[in-house]
Amino acid sequence: MNNSKTWSGRFNEPVSELVKKYTGSIDFDKRLAKWDIQGSLAHAEMLRQAEVLSDEDVANIQQGMAEILKEIESGTMPWSLDLEDVHMNIERRLTDKIGDAGKRLHTGRSRNDQVATDIRLWLRDEINEIRSLIQALQAALLDLAEQHADTVMPGFTHLQVAQPVSFGHHMLAYVEMLGRDDERMADCRKRVNRMPLGSAALAGTTYPIQRETTARLLKFEQICQNSLDAVSDRDFAIEFTAAASLLMVHLSRLSEELILWISPRFGFIDIADRFCTGSSIMPQKKNPDVPELVRGKSGRVIGHLTALIMLMKSQPLAYNKDNQEDKEPLFDTVDTLVDTLRIYADMVRGITVKPENMRAAVMQGFATATDLADYLVKKGMPFRDSHEVVALAVRHADEQEMDLSELPLDKLRSFSDLIEEDVYQVLTPEGSLNARNHLGGTAPEQVRLQVARWRELLAN
Amino acid sequence: MNNSKTWSGRFNEPVSELVKKYTGSIDFDKRLAKWDIQGSLAHAEMLRQAEVLSDEDVANIQQGMAEILKEIESGTMPWSLDLEDVHMNIERRLTDKIGDAGKRLHTGRSRNDQVATDIRLWLRDEINEIRSLIQALQAALLDLAEQHADTVMPGFTHLQVAQPVSFGHHMLAYVEMLGRDDERMADCRKRVNRMPLGSAALAGTTYPIQRETTARLLKFEQICQNSLDAVSDRDFAIEFTAAASLLMVHLSRLSEELILWISPRFGFIDIADRFCTGSSIMPQKKNPDVPELVRGKSGRVIGHLTALIMLMKSQPLAYNKDNQEDKEPLFDTVDTLVDTLRIYADMVRGITVKPENMRAAVMQGFATATDLADYLVKKGMPFRDSHEVVALAVRHADEQEMDLSELPLDKLRSFSDLIEEDVYQVLTPEGSLNARNHLGGTAPEQVRLQVARWRELLAN
Amino acid sequence: MNNSKTWSGRFNEPVSELVKKYTGSIDFDKRLAKWDIQGSLAHAEMLRQAEVLSDEDVANIQQGMAEILKEIESGTMPWSLDLEDVHMNIERRLTDKIGDAGKRLHTGRSRNDQVATDIRLWLRDEINEIRSLIQALQAALLDLAEQHADTVMPGFTHLQVAQPVSFGHHMLAYVEMLGRDDERMADCRKRVNRMPLGSAALAGTTYPIQRETTARLLKFEQICQNSLDAVSDRDFAIEFTAAASLLMVHLSRLSEELILWISPRFGFIDIADRFCTGSSIMPQKKNPDVPELVRGKSGRVIGHLTALIMLMKSQPLAYNKDNQEDKEPLFDTVDTLVDTLRIYADMVRGITVKPENMRAAVMQGFATATDLADYLVKKGMPFRDSHEVVALAVRHADEQEMDLSELPLDKLRSFSDLIEEDVYQVLTPEGSLNARNHLGGTAPEQVRLQVARWRELLAN
Amino acid sequence: MNNSKTWSGRFNEPVSELVKKYTGSIDFDKRLAKWDIQGSLAHAEMLRQAEVLSDEDVANIQQGMAEILKEIESGTMPWSLDLEDVHMNIERRLTDKIGDAGKRLHTGRSRNDQVATDIRLWLRDEINEIRSLIQALQAALLDLAEQHADTVMPGFTHLQVAQPVSFGHHMLAYVEMLGRDDERMADCRKRVNRMPLGSAALAGTTYPIQRETTARLLKFEQICQNSLDAVSDRDFAIEFTAAASLLMVHLSRLSEELILWISPRFGFIDIADRFCTGSSIMPQKKNPDVPELVRGKSGRVIGHLTALIMLMKSQPLAYNKDNQEDKEPLFDTVDTLVDTLRIYADMVRGITVKPENMRAAVMQGFATATDLADYLVKKGMPFRDSHEVVALAVRHADEQEMDLSELPLDKLRSFSDLIEEDVYQVLTPEGSLNARNHLGGTAPEQVRLQVARWRELLAN
Repeated sequence: MNNSKTWSGRFNEPVSELVKKYTGSIDFDKRLAKWDIQGSLAHAEMLRQAEVLSDEDVANIQQGMAEILKEIESGTMPWSLDLEDVHMNIERRLTDKIGDAGKRLHTGRSRNDQVATDIRLWLRDEINEIRSLIQALQAALLDLAEQHADTVMPGFTHLQVAQPVSFGHHMLAYVEMLGRDDERMADCRKRVNRMPLGSAALAGTTYPIQRETTARLLKFEQICQNSLDAVSDRDFAIEFTAAASLLMVHLSRLSEELILWISPRFGFIDIADRFCTGSSIMPQKKNPDVPELVRGKSGRVIGHLTALIMLMKSQPLAYNKDNQEDKEPLFDTVDTLVDTLRIYADMVRGITVKPENMRAAVMQGFATATDLADYLVKKGMPFRDSHEVVALAVRHADEQEMDLSELPLDKLRSFSDLIEEDVYQVLTPEGSLNARNHLGGTAPEQVRLQVARWRELLAN
Repeated sequence: MNNSKTWSGRFNEPVSELVKKYTGSIDFDKRLAKWDIQGSLAHAEMLRQAEVLSDEDVANIQQGMAEILKEIESGTMPWSLDLEDVHMNIERRLTDKIGDAGKRLHTGRSRNDQVATDIRLWLRDEINEIRSLIQALQAALLDLAEQHADTVMPGFTHLQVAQPVSFGHHMLAYVEMLGRDDERMADCRKRVNRMPLGSAALAGTTYPIQRETTARLLKFEQICQNSLDAVSDRDFAIEFTAAASLLMVHLSRLSEELILWISPRFGFIDIADRFCTGSSIMPQKKNPDVPELVRGKSGRVIGHLTALIMLMKSQPLAYNKDNQEDKEPLFDTVDTLVDTLRIYADMVRGITVKPENMRAAVMQGFATATDLADYLVKKGMPFRDSHEVVALAVRHADEQEMDLSELPLDKLRSFSDLIEEDVYQVLTPEGSLNARNHLGGTAPEQVRLQVARWRELLAN
Repeated sequence: MNNSKTWSGRFNEPVSELVKKYTGSIDFDKRLAKWDIQGSLAHAEMLRQAEVLSDEDVANIQQGMAEILKEIESGTMPWSLDLEDVHMNIERRLTDKIGDAGKRLHTGRSRNDQVATDIRLWLRDEINEIRSLIQALQAALLDLAEQHADTVMPGFTHLQVAQPVSFGHHMLAYVEMLGRDDERMADCRKRVNRMPLGSAALAGTTYPIQRETTARLLKFEQICQNSLDAVSDRDFAIEFTAAASLLMVHLSRLSEELILWISPRFGFIDIADRFCTGSSIMPQKKNPDVPELVRGKSGRVIGHLTALIMLMKSQPLAYNKDNQEDKEPLFDTVDTLVDTLRIYADMVRGITVKPENMRAAVMQGFATATDLADYLVKKGMPFRDSHEVVALAVRHADEQEMDLSELPLDKLRSFSDLIEEDVYQVLTPEGSLNARNHLGGTAPEQVRLQVARWRELLAN
Repeated sequence: MNNSKTWSGRFNEPVSELVKKYTGSIDFDKRLAKWDIQGSLAHAEMLRQAEVLSDEDVANIQQGMAEILKEIESGTMPWSLDLEDVHMNIERRLTDKIGDAGKRLHTGRSRNDQVATDIRLWLRDEINEIRSLIQALQAALLDLAEQHADTVMPGFTHLQVAQPVSFGHHMLAYVEMLGRDDERMADCRKRVNRMPLGSAALAGTTYPIQRETTARLLKFEQICQNSLDAVSDRDFAIEFTAAASLLMVHLSRLSEELILWISPRFGFIDIADRFCTGSSIMPQKKNPDVPELVRGKSGRVIGHLTALIMLMKSQPLAYNKDNQEDKEPLFDTVDTLVDTLRIYADMVRGITVKPENMRAAVMQGFATATDLADYLVKKGMPFRDSHEVVALAVRHADEQEMDLSELPLDKLRSFSDLIEEDVYQVLTPEGSLNARNHLGGTAPEQVRLQVARWRELLAN
């Protein structure tokens, strides 16, 4: 029916069903309903203060919107694809309820600034939620780090045993990454938290609007300063998705490590059964499904980043319909993040560490070779020379299938007569760990200091 | 409840609700139900021929599956998240209906080869549909091309007027692009149409399976030759999405042109109202929503390509749970393609061409300058010299705000005395068009030949 | 020769030429030489204060490094692929010059923390340069905006004429976008400006290093708090490239508009010849090569973003050789940004605006239809009703090929008798412009206020 | 100097140095010189047959081009940025040598169709090279597979031990992937091997060209049928880069596995020293740099794919300067592929397998649990029930830290009394392997059949 469209006066033929489905957004943007109403109420109040709407109109609008909100929450709101999107559905419902006051609500705004406002209000809330989930995950990692400040594991570079590290120190690396993610979310939120409302379709409006009032009511920190930019800007969506991608990359890295560590070849940890699934054919299997899916879902979020950048590339000003395609990737990014963070914090608390397996792995790979080189340097040999001496000692030990600490003193001295009995202290994993006792180093004392530092940061 | 999981014997604690939701796929993979049943029936028949299943078992399976298919079609099939995925839901339902024979169906296969088979069966059908939609769009473009073989429009390079071209010729450029898309889909289909079934979990099976039989029943062209590869291969999904991305890039290019041409600055065409929408605030607007959305949706498909490649990067063999993330991007790619192609063919038939505006644009931009240069070359001047002569003539005409064809003969001769009265023929758009009468050229005669060539190709 | 490799003691066979070429980075990372030396000098000074190196050693190192810097600047430094990378080349050169003190320089550090430090020092400088180039481009746009505060052009949505806007206002939209780019660069710089040095290979070092000293000498704001994270973190590179991608997206949008506006169909502006090129075959062509290339180069930078994210996905801690692949995309991103910003500021100053063509375009497209709707609302009609009334008036005017302002009063009144003689004021572009006189609106007065606001911001 | 530009007649001011550098392509496109000359010689010969050029002119052109080719090969060709690109540099050089005949060479073509032809000629050759390198790598893998047809390793799913597989079978999985890559390259080559020449700038030409002649001389299989499409089509570059991305994904997967297998936790293989590097600080390290870099470089190629798709998105017809940005990603993709394939084939031949470590890993992870389940099924138990029985047996064995084969018969019978003495045969890795003796299964006999099949395929 022609009447169902709010812009139909100019048109000769109705839109086909396929076109309605293709161009309609109500299926996904009804998720914004709560924020759409929030924005409308502030807009109405501002119009009242500007004497564009009467007190009575605004009272009616508030009353009608309260009813609609209830209908939405109870699932009785009648959504219609004929009305294209969440904005028109709510406005039509309002008008059905309260008559002309409903028709007056759209005064001085356009769907272009309305939808931009809705998304920002919604995303601002979601970022709050995401930040608190990041911090909950950090807290879980901190507990694990504290518990295992003294647990020695092989530190890898190139997946080869490099030097002994504290498992707690390893966990703290992820606390740092998540800390940066949190920072980026906070930085991004500053740019989300700016109000486009008042830009109308693209050029502003002829009504005596007071944008500072609406901004204050909606708790926006800043007001978008240019109407053309305000209705076409999707930077905040891209910036958010880029920050989300980095977060997922971090979790994909931790997931990769969990998958390695839980594999029988490593056997460094176990994950609680509730995060694993079995096989339909192999009865012995216990598969780390959750970290595998997290690793896989990193691609999903990064795909959304590509989609959003692609969307905006080379678009002329101001609003183009292309922009409607911003919502689904953004919604799915938020959902993926929220679910993943929630499940991850829980899973981290379900990790059991197997220190004996970690220590055994340290002993297999000459993890303290650098310590021997440092030992020689401290006895006066230039670093580059000591490096060469130790390389030869390692080659010999490897051929003998022994660790450096298992070579007899005279054998060690055959590589350099600077080596003395005290060398064996240096060659233990614990000695190696404790010797790296400086800011950022792996010594258990440093791990405990970092745990304390982070706990204080998170408490504020 | 422990019992609800098919692999639970080994596990100490049940999976949490959040984990179930996070790892379950039934919400989206139930779409594969029809193909899952198709694969199961062929598998059962093969097992019967191999004497692993009895005739009676197979009859029961066929009977049970027929009922399940009806339940699915009528919407009465009870899907359960506890049963994780489409495979377990159907198998459990079957067992509920027919007892032990249902439990025997999974003999000699695993969900790993089962799901790989399902997706390939499904995608094979979708490619058929997509290819026929591509060809329908080509047919619509061919009709438009034939109708406007003689319609002159400015050919652009750098969005500057370059040379006159036939509008039909311009439409044929997209027919060519779509032709390559169709080729790529056909090439991709060859690699989709290979059967992983029989690879079981990763290594094959100890049952005396006959893969040639199953392949023949399922009309697969080839059989995957390595079980490890077969269960972990998602090349076909990436290759398909890459081909889909190129198709969307082509449609984004045509959409960009339609948006330009329908804008009042160009005014070259009109699009039927049913593919446009209006504005909630600007009553005069008629917005080309459909081409804008197509342009936007190209990013969506390309985002899925990024996601799928990212998914597979650096995965060790064989199956990992990450792979479950292949389905949603693939499903959405197919849906976007099918909807877009369908709406596009319809929209092309709703294009009205405005030849007079096109011709007016040709006259403004020195479109026949190359023709003048060629004219001089044919009179004996080396090409590089004639190019310089014409550049000076254009500069002069531009200053006079005249077209080259409007300059008097003596003025033209002041640039080169090779120019004679016959030059004016060469300077008309139609003269220019007809002069490019060779394979691939823009002459109307060539356009008609190409339309005929393509119609014959599409008829076969 | 064994001697040429600094880690060769353990190895049985030399590295092949192809492997050297494949794994070596000296071809591209020598670009970091200046910052590598800067870092080494601070490291040496710290080691001196920590009494690990003698005063004499450090004096020799300073002397040797000064010579090497001169050799690099004069192009006489002998770079060798056998020495793999910039770090080993410089260290070897130093040792050749000053002997054992050179071998002692690497005490307490590793190439893993060294290269991470180098890149951050370098990128910090480049971000400074990029920020000043962004601001120079903003300044050029502000001048243009001020000059054309009163110039009326059609504001487009969906590339359809929407409402009249000020050309200055349009330019200011890009000033806003660039302002956000500048903010993001500043936010990113905070996270770049953290010191990994002191993390050594992955676990810290056994020497009594004083990281605060080195950080102070190198003017780092913060110190990386976890050694494992510090050597493997490439977040800053990804975050920078994401910010760069957004900047390029903005410039691709402006480029798209310049290309449209310079095309004869629009004819809104001209670009100085020095930013255009001609055609080898069409003598009349003047192609806007620079904006086209900028549009194209946006893909290049976004491709680098994909590459960098892909690089880090699922990497286990700590350093892996994959990370060497971070440099080329990062270098190319910086170069593309610097060149593009430089050329863009210059090009903006070479834009000639054609106000008469812009105004003509405003008159063709019912740009003031919204103003008519607002007029009716102010006379008491609900917005939704006035929208419908104007839509019918536009449809009529369109059929008559007249602008709304050209319809006689009685015709206008046939759509609503609220319309009176004063309507014609509202229907002029200038009336429309001036009526949008609120924060962010397109009124010339607002444009001038924004220019002043931005000039003050840029002055600080 | 004005004269140095071939299109300068129309321009008022010279191009600035920065613009020259930004828009010039000679730095990278001179790589196409050989193919540019090849194309020019065929074009000249065709013009001779069409009687557009005289025999003498063509003889001069051939003579001049022969000289230029020698200059290029010997490095004495003077390339100039003032001349923009490879085409103008060569043409100018030709004209300097032979005068007017050189100026006549550009008759009937444009740089738009010329560059499109050059890239296709070049890429066609590179694809030939890449295909032969793929096949060389397959041959190396086949040798390794044959050698280790009987070597048992744990087959993993989810990186958990799943079932025993033959190491040769595992290698064959990559032979299959590479086989698909080879197919895709062949399919892509069909679409590369089409001739755009004759399309001129965008619309064809007024000269009596004979495209079939040029195509035959240049060995093109087909001729591009639409001039607008021919000059703006970059599908082949995107399709090639997509195929290249898949190839790199495959090699990133194999690299991931090599890195895992060479790590001390696995210890399944060793890689020859010449593909590894050491550490500047840790003397014991032997890092698998080559596979790590391959893994990293997969991101590089996929980044190029994103860049190229982004480049073409929404470009209107026909040629735009954006397209110049196609070359660097394409060149780098080819170089990365060629280097990577070459080094990989060599590296595969440098792999030493450690069968005893693989076998030990098989014994730790209940790899034959499925075999036990199958055993029970064959004794009459439905599959789903046997799966549950074996799960309980595995749980018990796990608690006892024993393999299933180490449980005494009466213990095993406590889970099901169908189990008898013959069960122990089924529980050995070799028994498990040999039992999967069907097409695509892991039995050594199948591995040998596949090696033979592939050798025959590669021989043709």
